[in-house]
Amino acid sequence: MNSIKIDDTYAEAFETKASYLLITAATRELAYTAAVEATGFATSFIGCPAEAGIDGYVESSKTPDGRPGYSIIICQNTTKKLEQQLLERIGQCVLTAATTAVYNLLPESQIQSNLGFKLSFFADGYQEKIERYDRTLYKIPVMSGDFLIEENIGITDAVAGGNLYITAKTQQTALVAAQAAVNAIREIPGVITPFPGGIVASGSKVGSKKYDFMHATTNERYCPTLKDKISDSKLSKDTNGVYEIVFDGLDEERINLATQSAINAIKTIPDVQEISAGNFGGKLGKYKIHLKR
Amino acid sequence: MNSIKIDDTYAEAFETKASYLLITAATRELAYTAAVEATGFATSFIGCPAEAGIDGYVESSKTPDGRPGYSIIICQNTTKKLEQQLLERIGQCVLTAATTAVYNLLPESQIQSNLGFKLSFFADGYQEKIERYDRTLYKIPVMSGDFLIEENIGITDAVAGGNLYITAKTQQTALVAAQAAVNAIREIPGVITPFPGGIVASGSKVGSKKYDFMHATTNERYCPTLKDKISDSKLSKDTNGVYEIVFDGLDEERINLATQSAINAIKTIPDVQEISAGNFGGKLGKYKIHLKR
Amino acid sequence: MNSIKIDDTYAEAFETKASYLLITAATRELAYTAAVEATGFATSFIGCPAEAGIDGYVESSKTPDGRPGYSIIICQNTTKKLEQQLLERIGQCVLTAATTAVYNLLPESQIQSNLGFKLSFFADGYQEKIERYDRTLYKIPVMSGDFLIEENIGITDAVAGGNLYITAKTQQTALVAAQAAVNAIREIPGVITPFPGGIVASGSKVGSKKYDFMHATTNERYCPTLKDKISDSKLSKDTNGVYEIVFDGLDEERINLATQSAINAIKTIPDVQEISAGNFGGKLGKYKIHLKR
Amino acid sequence: MNSIKIDDTYAEAFETKASYLLITAATRELAYTAAVEATGFATSFIGCPAEAGIDGYVESSKTPDGRPGYSIIICQNTTKKLEQQLLERIGQCVLTAATTAVYNLLPESQIQSNLGFKLSFFADGYQEKIERYDRTLYKIPVMSGDFLIEENIGITDAVAGGNLYITAKTQQTALVAAQAAVNAIREIPGVITPFPGGIVASGSKVGSKKYDFMHATTNERYCPTLKDKISDSKLSKDTNGVYEIVFDGLDEERINLATQSAINAIKTIPDVQEISAGNFGGKLGKYKIHLKR
Repeated sequence: MNSIKIDDTYAEAFETKASYLLITAATRELAYTAAVEATGFATSFIGCPAEAGIDGYVESSKTPDGRPGYSIIICQNTTKKLEQQLLERIGQCVLTAATTAVYNLLPESQIQSNLGFKLSFFADGYQEKIERYDRTLYKIPVMSGDFLIEENIGITDAVAGGNLYITAKTQQTALVAAQAAVNAIREIPGVITPFPGGIVASGSKVGSKKYDFMHATTNERYCPTLKDKISDSKLSKDTNGVYEIVFDGLDEERINLATQSAINAIKTIPDVQEISAGNFGGKLGKYKIHLKR
Repeated sequence: MNSIKIDDTYAEAFETKASYLLITAATRELAYTAAVEATGFATSFIGCPAEAGIDGYVESSKTPDGRPGYSIIICQNTTKKLEQQLLERIGQCVLTAATTAVYNLLPESQIQSNLGFKLSFFADGYQEKIERYDRTLYKIPVMSGDFLIEENIGITDAVAGGNLYITAKTQQTALVAAQAAVNAIREIPGVITPFPGGIVASGSKVGSKKYDFMHATTNERYCPTLKDKISDSKLSKDTNGVYEIVFDGLDEERINLATQSAINAIKTIPDVQEISAGNFGGKLGKYKIHLKR
Repeated sequence: MNSIKIDDTYAEAFETKASYLLITAATRELAYTAAVEATGFATSFIGCPAEAGIDGYVESSKTPDGRPGYSIIICQNTTKKLEQQLLERIGQCVLTAATTAVYNLLPESQIQSNLGFKLSFFADGYQEKIERYDRTLYKIPVMSGDFLIEENIGITDAVAGGNLYITAKTQQTALVAAQAAVNAIREIPGVITPFPGGIVASGSKVGSKKYDFMHATTNERYCPTLKDKISDSKLSKDTNGVYEIVFDGLDEERINLATQSAINAIKTIPDVQEISAGNFGGKLGKYKIHLKR
Repeated sequence: MNSIKIDDTYAEAFETKASYLLITAATRELAYTAAVEATGFATSFIGCPAEAGIDGYVESSKTPDGRPGYSIIICQNTTKKLEQQLLERIGQCVLTAATTAVYNLLPESQIQSNLGFKLSFFADGYQEKIERYDRTLYKIPVMSGDFLIEENIGITDAVAGGNLYITAKTQQTALVAAQAAVNAIREIPGVITPFPGGIVASGSKVGSKKYDFMHATTNERYCPTLKDKISDSKLSKDTNGVYEIVFDGLDEERINLATQSAINAIKTIPDVQEISAGNFGGKLGKYKIHLKR
């Protein structure tokens, strides 16, 4: 392990609502294709209609229908908005995808959204409610055969905004360290990394110093090309790259675990300088995810 | 070539507004990652905020900054809605992606949206307007370095809803034929296939016979599992699979070309029965893309 | 599950020698790149220098160095030939690959090949034998940094030639069923599918009816385009596609498990006709892997 | 473009024999799968049976059979050895791959190897010689249908061992620069990058200072971890990573073009220090590929 300075701070995370679904298909590749489409355009609540991501591969021996699948997580900040996102994302990106089926991975949640019931109207009267795999499903006839979806999809309280900053001598070192961190986080069930490739190149601060109408702007104190132009840069002279990792999880414990796993992964990469995190003095959320445990 | 019946009909396509952008990055993989995120959750106007897709790989020798890139197309039915989608998709999914830059592939369009200008406020006063590569760009300092984006992004009239139905003895034959068709369409510059993997498993009809509140419902006459239950099925007894291909393009000529290329590709697959298309008697759009030319 | 005829026969498998190695790297992608190269050109002993394949992804939390990895299996029919393959494949395709390290996944095997010791001469005197991660490793200075490889790599008796034939109405249905079977087999630790995509399009019989110099030739009784030209075809009139799956495993139990998992996976695909297997009356090997258990 | 020191030297390349083939399949993915297997275990003549790689995607509109394909190049230093490699690699890795066909991309070469004729014996008497697509092909019945391969495959004189060294402050910067260089080289038709991901982590010198039996050993003067232990290191104090790129091409002009394209690509990556190349005073080959033109 390489020796890296860990900033004695915490990542400020916040509450969200989340659904946890399983998409299966005839082949692993087909399931993946649907999962990618359903979780696209979903990096940040600031400008996307959801935060979403692929949680992981689910082996065919562990899915209800014996086919390979991918679990996904979709987040929004209210149950109502999340239900709308489920309807649109599953209806447009999974019902339409070749050979897919959709199952509920939160059957114990108190809140259950009747997504399958709602989507079944697409069948225009030809839908059937059936019992299969110890679940209540809707069968929707489509061009390729029948689409199956579980009647209810659970919604749970979850945690968004886990994060880490990685500071390095070169942009590329910070990037590869970020990729290693994302690899490690993606191994943890129930945690997603919603940004492109799991990585944020343009980490932001809350609000703006200059423009009232901006909810989030560049975190200039961590911008390498500004370090000689501003007086309060957090970066040292020889820092040329910073990347942020952002992750959402089903509970605080998972976010803590993801944080530690990511730190361990970053330590495997030489020439990283420091690991820090973004916190905004409580403006953003109630969870404090300390880097040092 | 296999002998396949071509239905003597046309696909009904309709008008849309479209932008055509180039995303470059340090490596091909990084550019692809951004392009996938930016064009996700974008299969159909019915329930998605846009239709979007990757147009193709652009070699590093043909991009302004000498880096590898992917061209993408984003569609919405009004200029205003398209501008909003550009702001959100590029701002959240490309500005945030590692090492990316964004260029305008429609510099000749009469309508130019000042996307780069708008996004530059993210720099919170540290943005710079520069001339580089014979273009006007904004330089936005971010954690990983500087993000570059062209000041203006062109918007053009385009054509959405090109489509084909592929009918086969088995679901899998229709699927592989659809994949072959998508491969062929994706080779045509200026045409995208917005659905997951380019393929629609659940082709729809306009409106509903049963539910007033539904804008689109399953096209039951093409559903194999309903062929013995309804009197007006379009499918023969031995048809077990139908897939639809949907594609959007920058102009009608490209949609015609994509249609013929897709038909040729489908003919390379044995055991396909028929190629048809969806038209709705002019309810949907003004373009008639005839299968037989 | 679809109803498919299971032929009451067995696959004839045979003895081989095998090594089981772990390749780690800075990122999952880099480890995968090395694993693919090291296991290429390795489908069949008939004409390749080895049979080899990727066994699976190994999470960073489960590798010695905390980095993501892929386990691979390399087979040859004698220890001596296998050692030569290890030297060439690891020396040329992993030592040369960016950021990799190599670990022994068979530390308990009686036969241990001193691959790390042999490769260490590449360091031209600058090699170091070190103890790390509770293992004995060689450290070889290379351009990118240091390459680490475990001193010894275990060799074990294993089983090659597990197989299944999938017969269907169309070529594409057999293909997608084969892909589903490969997905299922790849989920089983210690089993690989050495052919391209795990699938054999040109299943063979031992020897030749016509050419003395051929060790293996097409299995004409299973060729759809010959079914009307020969008198002893095993295919019915409406069969248009057959694919074979071949798999090698660390022991007979795993081959049995892979066989049953593959059969279950094939049952998820509609329009498959029959599952059979290749046996050659004991000419090939001593293991009988019965399809019906 | 970043300012990078270009060493005033040349890469020493050498003569090889090469074949240039096209693999098509029902889908792009299936063609790619076959191409990867056929070009695996083929990084360097030192320990591999060939040098080989994927040249590029060939659009379905540009292939004889209207299906998508990949062109590949296979190199060996004599015609006889190359013919043996063709027989084994195409026979074991492409004939066996789902839905593939093989075409000759060097029909004008004086030397034509009758690979299709030789492989046709696999059909055990059921082969047919046919004229199709203005070519002479063999049709070989296999389980999945018919495999088509052109009767002759051309062999040409070609150039191996084009190379560049990339030196950077951190290992990761050299790595990303190497990836960018490989992206650029892969855009040039008729040039391959045979190493894993196109990159060499363990660039070598000819022979050994210490061990008579070694044909190639680590190039210690470019090893960052040895720079303080040897007196003749070529690396400066702050260099922590070096990667080599190796490429083979159909002629010297292409190797020159690849070299310049790679240099331009490397210049797009910040924090690279120097670009150099490996030459061995004429011990290795007759071509001098100068970095400065």
